Formats: sequence, structure tokens, C-alpha cells
Amino acid sequence: MNTNERGNSLGDYGKRISIYDTTLRDGSQGEGISFSLGDKLKIAQKLDYLGVDYIEGGWPGSNPKDLEFFRAIKEVPLQNARIAAFSATRKPGGAVQQDSNIRALLDSGARVVTMVGKSWDFHVLRALETTLEENLNMIRDSIHYLKSEGRQVFFDAEHFFDGYKNNPEYAIKVIQAAEQAGADAVVLCDTNGGTMPWEIHDIVKSAQSAYSAPLGIHVHNDSGCAVANSLMAVTAGCTQVQGTINSYGERCGNADLCAIIPSLELKLKRPCLPAGNLKRLTEVARFIAETANMPSPNNQPFVGHGAFAHKGGIHVSALLKDSLTYEHIDPEEVGNHRRVLVSELSGLSNLLYKAQELGLDVNSYDAESRRIIRDIKDLENQGFQFEGAEASLELLLRKAFGQQQDPFRLENLKVILEKRENGVISSEAMIKIAVGDKVFHTAAEGNGPVDAMDQTLRKALAEVYPEIESMHLCDFKVRVLNGDAGTAAKVRVLVESTDSKEKWSTVGVSENIIEASYQALVDSISYILRKT
Amino acid sequence: MNTNERGNSLGDYGKRISIYDTTLRDGSQGEGISFSLGDKLKIAQKLDYLGVDYIEGGWPGSNPKDLEFFRAIKEVPLQNARIAAFSATRKPGGAVQQDSNIRALLDSGARVVTMVGKSWDFHVLRALETTLEENLNMIRDSIHYLKSEGRQVFFDAEHFFDGYKNNPEYAIKVIQAAEQAGADAVVLCDTNGGTMPWEIHDIVKSAQSAYSAPLGIHVHNDSGCAVANSLMAVTAGCTQVQGTINSYGERCGNADLCAIIPSLELKLKRPCLPAGNLKRLTEVARFIAETANMPSPNNQPFVGHGAFAHKGGIHVSALLKDSLTYEHIDPEEVGNHRRVLVSELSGLSNLLYKAQELGLDVNSYDAESRRIIRDIKDLENQGFQFEGAEASLELLLRKAFGQQQDPFRLENLKVILEKRENGVISSEAMIKIAVGDKVFHTAAEGNGPVDAMDQTLRKALAEVYPEIESMHLCDFKVRVLNGDAGTAAKVRVLVESTDSKEKWSTVGVSENIIEASYQALVDSISYILRKT
Repeated sequence: MNTNERGNSLGDYGKRISIYDTTLRDGSQGEGISFSLGDKLKIAQKLDYLGVDYIEGGWPGSNPKDLEFFRAIKEVPLQNARIAAFSATRKPGGAVQQDSNIRALLDSGARVVTMVGKSWDFHVLRALETTLEENLNMIRDSIHYLKSEGRQVFFDAEHFFDGYKNNPEYAIKVIQAAEQAGADAVVLCDTNGGTMPWEIHDIVKSAQSAYSAPLGIHVHNDSGCAVANSLMAVTAGCTQVQGTINSYGERCGNADLCAIIPSLELKLKRPCLPAGNLKRLTEVARFIAETANMPSPNNQPFVGHGAFAHKGGIHVSALLKDSLTYEHIDPEEVGNHRRVLVSELSGLSNLLYKAQELGLDVNSYDAESRRIIRDIKDLENQGFQFEGAEASLELLLRKAFGQQQDPFRLENLKVILEKRENGVISSEAMIKIAVGDKVFHTAAEGNGPVDAMDQTLRKALAEVYPEIESMHLCDFKVRVLNGDAGTAAKVRVLVESTDSKEKWSTVGVSENIIEASYQALVDSISYILRKT
Repeated sequence: MNTNERGNSLGDYGKRISIYDTTLRDGSQGEGISFSLGDKLKIAQKLDYLGVDYIEGGWPGSNPKDLEFFRAIKEVPLQNARIAAFSATRKPGGAVQQDSNIRALLDSGARVVTMVGKSWDFHVLRALETTLEENLNMIRDSIHYLKSEGRQVFFDAEHFFDGYKNNPEYAIKVIQAAEQAGADAVVLCDTNGGTMPWEIHDIVKSAQSAYSAPLGIHVHNDSGCAVANSLMAVTAGCTQVQGTINSYGERCGNADLCAIIPSLELKLKRPCLPAGNLKRLTEVARFIAETANMPSPNNQPFVGHGAFAHKGGIHVSALLKDSLTYEHIDPEEVGNHRRVLVSELSGLSNLLYKAQELGLDVNSYDAESRRIIRDIKDLENQGFQFEGAEASLELLLRKAFGQQQDPFRLENLKVILEKRENGVISSEAMIKIAVGDKVFHTAAEGNGPVDAMDQTLRKALAEVYPEIESMHLCDFKVRVLNGDAGTAAKVRVLVESTDSKEKWSTVGVSENIIEASYQALVDSISYILRKT
């Protein structure tokens, strides 16, 4: 195969690749994912902002929420993307005009429709329980009818690679039937995700020699090769790539568009987004993770919070000389950024980098710097993690340099929860604090114990520090550190706060979740008070 | 390229691949990972139980914990694996015998040593700040000296692929120098993880033509292609694969051995573990995730809890006919198992599957079954998730069929927390419950509020239900559902319990973490009482 990196141009160097996003349809099959109609509309707008070509909105025949989406999205102006509706081919033995799925597809009003049909003989016989010839008729009838209704039609050849390995003649007959019936493109699917990269390449090549309309690729990640398989398919001639943001999807997920798009644009030199939009990728990936309410894997390629995070001391000292030493691309190209982690494994380089950022006078040779690293390591042994709580780390460093005082002194805090027979639950907190020689003693209620504590603490501090009114908590995470200790487990609480200009993160650790939350809250307040 | 799946044998069909695990060294560079000495010893034993050939224990020159590991591991009998120690080549301009890293390497007592050296001219000049010729001398001296001390020596050619693309002659000179100095194998590294699969294949082929000792492959996942790249390298002739369990490692991680090993054995027919050991893979992956205290990605290929979890109704109805329809391998081959998820998207097929397991008389056509699905969907909309809480789902189904009564009635529960000026924190709970017409009113303390509640509830119930003594909580997870609501966010608590024979999971959801924990605890107790 040719590569552009080594001076040989790829056959289709510079030719555009069309991106077909199925986060809202195949992505919603992922475990733990459940989109509301509002979520789907927000995600569709964000995908359009990124600049994908197609957004598969759902399967109108399968559930009322999907049908509702197609109605609602018509009111939303889109700049780049076309909305596609998904369905299977007509049922065996039925008439296409009367097929309920096909009717729902037309009723959705989507101008682009994607029909899935079987291309693995085993599936036709075993799952569909019909004949190989009737399956070809189902494909021909469905595509022909939808074309006659004026739709742009893509045909997803389900299990194409497994089908080709089992019965290449039949698999090829299927895509030829789709082409003859007028499909605008045939998308070759590795539905079970078990195909190896070199097989993908060779089978796409074989398909190409028997078929002339555009080819797409749609793969799953069951072997951990979905990104590579999608890219291999492009080098073999596919011009449409289907996938999901953050790899959401059934079982091990679909191919991750967040990894495919930057490699297409930056490495294969195959543009796929409007010029300049690649920088929006990280923002879009995180927005969709938030909306899906799924954790963002820290080590996700390109867009992960840690994708350009450096921990090893040797790596950091080389990066200080030239970032190309340990980064395959500039993180800014995908809207991400470099982070240097201060942790147990980090040498002085990492601390120096951090201290430089804060303008602190740290000297790599002195005992004080070494003591600070040791203190950080001690806290990390207790379960603190400063990698994700940079405001707490800053406070710790400033305290070590005598630049930071506690903004108040706690005398007493009580939290009381009550659950009664009728199910009513109450949470209240009482606090007594001192600022200088002034004592504040107050109480408040909240939604749960942490909220009650937060409300009470703010109420007590608001008189002396009115600036805390401008901040609020925007994320709250709880991680159980030693789950095997059951309810006595130690927990780490990470709190993210914002004053609408800036975001900062703080951490607390304790066996008592209320105490851990208290530590993170106090750090967060100390941080904003220092700034203002 | 030839493929075994399509009737052509791979060149080395059946020839063994050697697995070199670097979880304890490169893996520990991953963000959030911090192994204690005890963790490292436990993990090494588990890797040996899996049957890898080499376990890289650490870098003895870099920190005392790694040095201590090599001392301690000598006392541990291993069946399959050899322990390897890692270091860089000698420093520029120094003498190899006096080099502190090389001394520490020999002092570690490891019989296998892996030396990393530069093969990218840019890195030699920019990061090492030495000459291209001195770098070759460093490699020759270090390998030669270690061979003369009787060690098995592997040479990690750092940044080999980037180096080859920039200056192929020099990159080849580096591996030839290592071979001439006596290296037992040269391992080609894609250190920055940016190389594309076809480039890996072509460059390994080029390296092979200029070099004759065994070749290994060591890649990072910055482009999401690490698994595919490792497999491509094997098809091009590499016979050693380096990687980590669960893909731990700097930035986006190293190549995931949990995905590479099964593809090598099952798809490429290249054995790498002792016969029969592949079944241990899932157990080992999860043990190491637990020990590393890292979340196990649900969708991780092969070993993820959801790797064979089916949600779409059509998939489930096909699976009921033949599991080959939607699974690329039999999950048992890697020690994993199939799961059928009951969720919003699931049709009646999934519920029927679940109900069959419980021996409940559900009829796919009746109104009752449809009502239960609707109830489950309502609870999921509130944030409940039964995919990971199968005991709670069972209780819900049994309640719907009148087979489950609440084991007690709550009259009142209070939890009181106090934090005083001296830092002392106390957590106590009071409870009043009724079992039939008997009332129990008691109190207890705990480590934090949830533990206090757990202790109190058990104390109150122990007289009537002594069997609860046999169970204990073995995992406790907290997920914040809408973190953007800050401290008023809704949380989902998942509790795993065991009576040493069986494990079961339950769930609770509330804005109040104490209430959510209470729901999960009560479900857990109800489940064990039902069983006994």
C-alpha cells in the first residue's frame, strides 16, 4: 500500500471523505446510553456544528421517540449536515408499499434513508428464515421503491465481511442487487466487529472490482481494531465512513469518529470537515459525553483529557525542549491541550513546569522543592489525585511557599438527615466558623447532605466574602477508592466550579463522603477568594 | 497480505508469539495509576498465572519502589514468566561500567534486561543532545556489556517508526548496531503512537530485510490503532509483542494485550499462552483493574463487562436462534459471558430472556409484560440502571409477579455527622423498623454516614434475620448523574454484595446520597433473605 508519509501519494490523496454519524441510532444501542428527545436535538446541532455530512437520527419504525425526533429536527436550521433515517428492508414475503417500517421511513420526511439488509447467507437462512433469492428481492424492492419516492438511498450491507468470507459470490450478488436497484452508495458493514485490518483491506478491494458506485465502511470494535479498520477501508477505496462520537454502540461500540476524523485529515490528507472545524472536535466529543451522561475515558485518543498528558519525568524534560519529541500531533489541531502531571512518578521536571506556570520560585536543586514533591507523594498515597484537581495542587504549592492562608476557621459542622415512614427525607446542616475574630453560626437545608453543607457554608461566608456568590459548582464526581471495603470505603470527591469566566477543580479524600466533599468545597472557595 | 481466514495460510501460521508484558513499568505511566509494592507483586503473580513470557517489573534506576520489587519478586515462585528489568542505554560520554542506570539494572538481579535507545535522529540531536555516532556507541557499549554479564538482552528501538520515516538509513543503522552487539531481539517502538497500520506493516518489512535476529513490536495508542498495529506487525514478521493489560500507559495508553492475545490465538492461529489459559484472560484483566483501582471500561473488547452484552431487540431475538449471529467469538473462550440487557431500547425478547432465567411465567403478548417493561423504562428515566444491578431487577420482576414482600417496614432513620474544630469527625445513625408487629429501635456508629446506616440496619435486623451475618458488601460505587447540578446532583449508588458463594448487585437513585445508598442496601438485604 502507498502512504503519503513516505513520499508516495495515496491513490486518492486530497479527495474528500464523507462522514456519516450514527451516534443517535447505533450509538444509542450502547450499554448505559439513553437519549431523551431533547438530548438528540442538542447532539444533532452539535454534530452539524462540527460539520459531519450525515446525521442518522434514528429508526422511525422502532419507537415513538425516534419518530418524534424527525418531526422536531425539521424546525432546526442546519448548516452542514443532512438528516438520515434508518430502517431494515421490507419483511420477507410482504409488499414493500405496505411494509410498516418502510412506511415509517417515508413518513419521517427524511430526504436521506439508509436501508440495512443481509449479505451473509447464514443470517438470511438462520435469522431471517427466508431464501437467498427472496432476500435479494427484498433489497431490490425496498431500494427501488425509496428511489422512486425521490430519496437519497444508502444500503448498509450488514455482516458483509463475515458474509464474504463464508460465501463471496452471494455477498457480491447482494451489493450488485443494491447497485442495480439504484442505491447511491453501498456501505460494507463489519457488524460483529471481528474482522482483521488486512482482511478489511482485501475484501473492500474485491468488492470494488465487482461494483462501481461509491462504497462506505461501517465497523464495530469487538476486536479493538475499528479505527484502524475504517482507515484501512479508506486506503482501499471507501469514500464514506460511518461511526459514532466517542465510539458509543452495541457491545464494544462502533468505530470512534473522534479518532478517525483527525487521522483522515492530518495523516491521510483526506479532508472531511469544513476547513478549520477540526479544532472543534474535542469540544464536541466532551459535549456529547456530557449529554449522554457517559464518563469520558481519560486516555481516549485525540480528545481525551489525558490524550496529551505527560507523566514520566524523561518525557517532560524532552517536551520542554520540543513538543514533537513525545506528541504525534499538536494537541491544538483537535482543540485539545497539553497537560503535565505532577505525581509519584514525576521527577522535578514536572513540578518545575507547574511552578513556572504559577510564577513560584522553585529551584530544582533545593531541599524545599524536594520536600514539596515528597508531601505530594504522601497525599497521593492517601488517595489524593492532583492530576485532575489542579486548583487544589496550586493551593498546596502556594501554601508551601507561604502564599496562601485559610480564609476561615471551622469550629463545628453538623449534618443531620432524616428519613421518615412516609418517605419524606430532610437534609440540614449547622455550621460555626470564625473569620478573624468574627464568629458566624448558621444553618440551612439542602437537597441531600452535601448540598445542605454547601448552602450552609456559603450562607456563613457570604457576609465577609460576597464574591462567592459569583461562583457555582458545575461538576461533582465521586470515586470509591477501595470498593471492597464496602460502605466503609474511602472516597475521593472531585468538584469542578466556575464563575462563568473560568473553571477549576478541587479534590477531597476521606472514608466519610461528607468530609471528602467538605475538603473539596473549601478548596474551591479558597481558590476563588485568592483570585478576587 | 495473506490471511488465514480466507484459505491462504499466513506465512508463520502456527508459530508461537512471545508476549512481553509491561503493565508494571510502562503501564504505571498512565494517568491515575500508582502501584504499591504489594500491588506489583500481586499483579506479577496474576500475569504469570495468565502465562505471559516476560514481565517487565520496572526501571530499577528510576525509583526505590522498583528496586524493592526486584528484591521481593525473587522469593515468589513463577510458573511461566521471566522477570525483566528496564533501563536506558548508558549516558552520552560516560563509561558503561560506571553508569548508574546500568549498575542498578545489574544489581536488580533480573536475568532479562531491556535497554531503550534512540533510533530517531531528531531525538538524538534534540532530546539527548549528542551526536548520531555517540548514540550508536551508547547502544553498542550497553548491550555488549550486559551480554558479557550473562543477561538476555532486548533492545527497545524508541521512536523507530518516526525515525525510519525521517531518516531510514540511520534507523536501520541503530538496529544493526544492536544486533551486532549481541541483542537477543530488537523491539520496534511506535513511542508517540501516531503511525498508521499500513506504515507499520511496510516499515517492519523493510527492517526485516536489513536485519536477521528476532523482531518485537511495542506501540502506543495515540491514534486508536495500537491493537491493529501490533497485529499488523505480527503479519509482517514480528515474533514478540509488548503491551499492557487494559491498555494502561502514558497519554492514550499502550497496546492492550487483552485484545491482542485473543486475536493472535483465535484469528491468526498464533499461540502465545499455555494451552487452555486464554480462558483466564477476563479474570486477569479485571483483577488488574481492581488492583490498579481503575474503572474497567464496560465496552473493552473481549474482556469488558459489556463486550458481549446485547441491547437491541433484533439482536437478542437472533441470538436466541444462534449466538454466532451477533458475536464474533464465543465469550467463554476468553472467560467472559453473554449478557442480555433490559432497557428502554430492548424489546420483549430481552425481558423474556431474563424472565426465563428466573422461571417466571411471562407471556410475550400479555398486558402485564408490557406494563413491566413500561415500569422499568420509567425507573430508567429517573436514573436507575438495571444493566448493572441484576439483583434489583430480579426483585422488581418478582414484586410485579407478587413473589416478593418487603422484609421490614421503616418507621424512622436519622443519620448525624459532626466535624469539630480539632478535626474529629463522627458518624452515627438511629433506626426504628418493624418486622410484623415487632418493633426494633437501635443506633450504631460507622466510618462515614453510609457505613453508620449499614451497621445500624444490620443491628436492627440481626435478631429476626440472623442470615444477614453471612453477607457483606464487596463493592460500592457512586455515579453522579447530572454533575452540572453541583452538590444538588442526583446520584446512583451501585452496591455489590457477597455471601462468599455468590455475588449480587443492587442499585439506588436519589439526590440524596444517603437515600440512594439506603435503597441499594435494602435491595441487597432483600435479595439474600429471599435466597435463604
